[in-house]
Amino acid sequence: MSKLLIVGTVAFDAIETPFGKTDKILGGAATYIALSASQFDVKTGIVSVVGGDFPKEYLKNLNSKNINTDGIEIVEDGKTFFWSGKYHNDLNTRDTLITDLNVLADFNPVVPAEFLDTEFLMLGNLHPAVQMSVIKQIPNRPKLVVLDTMNFWMDNALDQLLEVISKIDVITINDEEARQLSGEYSLVKAAQKIHKMGPKYVVIKKGEHGALLFNDDNVFFAPALPLEEVFDPTGAGDTFAGGFIGHLTKSEDISFENMKRAVISGSNLASFSVEKFGTERMENLTKEDVQKRLLQFKLLTQFDIELA
Amino acid sequence: MSKLLIVGTVAFDAIETPFGKTDKILGGAATYIALSASQFDVKTGIVSVVGGDFPKEYLKNLNSKNINTDGIEIVEDGKTFFWSGKYHNDLNTRDTLITDLNVLADFNPVVPAEFLDTEFLMLGNLHPAVQMSVIKQIPNRPKLVVLDTMNFWMDNALDQLLEVISKIDVITINDEEARQLSGEYSLVKAAQKIHKMGPKYVVIKKGEHGALLFNDDNVFFAPALPLEEVFDPTGAGDTFAGGFIGHLTKSEDISFENMKRAVISGSNLASFSVEKFGTERMENLTKEDVQKRLLQFKLLTQFDIELA
Repeated sequence: MSKLLIVGTVAFDAIETPFGKTDKILGGAATYIALSASQFDVKTGIVSVVGGDFPKEYLKNLNSKNINTDGIEIVEDGKTFFWSGKYHNDLNTRDTLITDLNVLADFNPVVPAEFLDTEFLMLGNLHPAVQMSVIKQIPNRPKLVVLDTMNFWMDNALDQLLEVISKIDVITINDEEARQLSGEYSLVKAAQKIHKMGPKYVVIKKGEHGALLFNDDNVFFAPALPLEEVFDPTGAGDTFAGGFIGHLTKSEDISFENMKRAVISGSNLASFSVEKFGTERMENLTKEDVQKRLLQFKLLTQFDIELA
Repeated sequence: MSKLLIVGTVAFDAIETPFGKTDKILGGAATYIALSASQFDVKTGIVSVVGGDFPKEYLKNLNSKNINTDGIEIVEDGKTFFWSGKYHNDLNTRDTLITDLNVLADFNPVVPAEFLDTEFLMLGNLHPAVQMSVIKQIPNRPKLVVLDTMNFWMDNALDQLLEVISKIDVITINDEEARQLSGEYSLVKAAQKIHKMGPKYVVIKKGEHGALLFNDDNVFFAPALPLEEVFDPTGAGDTFAGGFIGHLTKSEDISFENMKRAVISGSNLASFSVEKFGTERMENLTKEDVQKRLLQFKLLTQFDIELA
């Protein structure tokens, strides 16, 4: 069984959408990534930090899904990272209301001994210096390193981010971020430029418009499943990334053909994540749910047309 | 060989994009639809109107592509419909600079005798009263009637538009128009409501984000091909519609499975249309170009994933 190490935030989120609002609930990139990857039978560990206010039952719940939390440092006299946001009516845009870094401000990640030989490494959205520290702690390069990041680091820590980007295999960013990072409006051209920065594979997430996977001249597109209701988009991108790397870790196959399946798996899992507030849907997701919806993805995209 | 009748504008366009600008060039919904459908070996006719200023060579050029122009009325002392627009930098939005209806203002469409038994009818974007007049002139209902329309008619002639919508089989509109027409933000819900207005099939065009085909509980998605350069989006939606109905007319098969292929054909042809100003790319398109790119669509979307 391959190992998957995830570094990223474990947090409290308070979310407001047109459909309701929550108090502080479980959130964070690493949480969503790990819950999504837990759908595959892989050995998953998280590297993160929380405060003394973080309920132990949240950790136990992750453990019950075969997610190792030894790498989640608990700063007893500190407070857990807190994010609060409010979505606009179209759910495609949001305002950040509060970002309290708390214990995240001084986070020094430590990879647990058991995961120093991880084959798959997922660098969730975090300060690039933290991501780099994790890369450096792992003595033998993992089989595949996937990076997720965002425009905030492009604005505030570009040099460090570019150094991380030069060392990874797959980058996942959204369309606007791909344009910002590359200076190209066309996503095809953007991917070409980003390839040159290091990553052999570029995944561009377009939210409700799906995701593109680029590898040199190859391109693959996975749509988002058209849904009657999108309840809360928080964590959809992380859930996508978790499904992507979970599928690859499980299959131990990093060919382009298999990455296509990984992108579909990620889109599939993300389609569940948005159906309820926070992590609720992902925590109660069955393998049967996942398989059923995978069939919907096939019906949605597969066609048979004659080529002359 | 099945017949396809197209009603729509034949026009002059003056277009400005970030990449350049044109003087008055050939444009109009029916022009784009017919050029796209001419890629299939079908008997196509246009019903439209132009002024005495419309070059005869434009008509001859259409005729050379097996497009019958007997239904294009020439008002010798009138001027051809003229539209001018300027695209913004992202090419997804544009400002209309000039709309001179000219001969279109008093257009009374007359279906040529030869097309009174048309099996396929494409109602291009026009005043719903004109679309209805064409429907009424055809004594035996065609096998399939496809309607394209836009928000302008929803704002200004909604009752007449709804009457046309109640009489057709397939509606093609963009995502914002589907939302406006239905009052639903979710495109899944929007399609459900539009089904109830009449059309068994609802095609929602999302521009660079592809197109969705709905039929009751079935849904199919065709992406737009990711392009390095989009030069001029004018007519892309009409080219899509022309490819859609051209494919159906050629195959004489209006099953949902075949409509999937038709949507892919439409997306494929639209991907060429945007590569040059106006109709230029469509006028010089070979069957080989089309087949080659169809293979790209397969590579872009087809995957093989195991269902348990």
